[in-house]
Amino acid sequence: MHTENNLSTIIQYLITHNITISSAESCSGGLISKMITDIPGCSTIYPGGVCAYSNEMKKKWLNVKSSTLEQYGAVSAETALEMAQGIRNVTGSYYGISTTGIAGPGGGSVEKPVGLVYIAVVGPNYQRVEKLPLNPNIPLTRATIQQQAAEYALHMLYDSLKPKEMQNEV
Amino acid sequence: MHTENNLSTIIQYLITHNITISSAESCSGGLISKMITDIPGCSTIYPGGVCAYSNEMKKKWLNVKSSTLEQYGAVSAETALEMAQGIRNVTGSYYGISTTGIAGPGGGSVEKPVGLVYIAVVGPNYQRVEKLPLNPNIPLTRATIQQQAAEYALHMLYDSLKPKEMQNEV
Repeated sequence: MHTENNLSTIIQYLITHNITISSAESCSGGLISKMITDIPGCSTIYPGGVCAYSNEMKKKWLNVKSSTLEQYGAVSAETALEMAQGIRNVTGSYYGISTTGIAGPGGGSVEKPVGLVYIAVVGPNYQRVEKLPLNPNIPLTRATIQQQAAEYALHMLYDSLKPKEMQNEV
Repeated sequence: MHTENNLSTIIQYLITHNITISSAESCSGGLISKMITDIPGCSTIYPGGVCAYSNEMKKKWLNVKSSTLEQYGAVSAETALEMAQGIRNVTGSYYGISTTGIAGPGGGSVEKPVGLVYIAVVGPNYQRVEKLPLNPNIPLTRATIQQQAAEYALHMLYDSLKPKEMQNEV
């Protein structure tokens, strides 16, 4: 994971290499979209994204299956993957990225505690889903969970680019 | 315009009164969504929103008409209204809010300069669209335009609630 890169560098890289992405956010609540659109020129690689907070909108906008939500729950690797696949399909972007998790302070349980977040990246013939590794040195608040989820999603995307999109680099 | 209210107070008000909203953002790029989802408990009133950055996604997600985009442009009162109507229709929320504008630094023209933003609020039997009144005391940057657009949209929504939703208040 290339955490040495800041977010601006990652978005600039996508712009320079014309790699289109779209975001499907639940627990990060629009923060990924904000991070991307903070960067001038992003419109060439970012047609848009959704914050699908409710299960209804996950189904409607992202084509997440009811059976997936029922069997695994909204906060699951399976739902994260379907969200990323869904946003990629609907936008036609090269990559789709997603987050789904429990930002708290409510909504946690023993099985699925506050801070549990799944993040997915889907590209052509490629898919990857991870449980967010929470930084033990950062206090666990709603804001820090959302921030870590959004940042990790973009770093995971950047990490996923290699070596395919970088193979022509000197 | 009730600018004395901070954003957290506005979202809390919506939660307390169970007034559902959804956002359709272009130039504010997800910031409205982030502002809403910063507040715990927002999931009861916020099913979600879209950042429809490209015209394609404005049409696909929000049902903005091609003829509107061609005749008035993406940055126009007409498009802002259709975006807010569109997100309200697709989510079933009580209110739809939207932003469309030129956050810069590129993309401006004499007719439509950087900083030109239209914001719309649509509710049942209600619609309102305004040109963002830029604060002359704030330097005009991409970040400050996005911030002012998102904040104004939420204040405009709050302002729109009165007196209908408040008429039963003591």
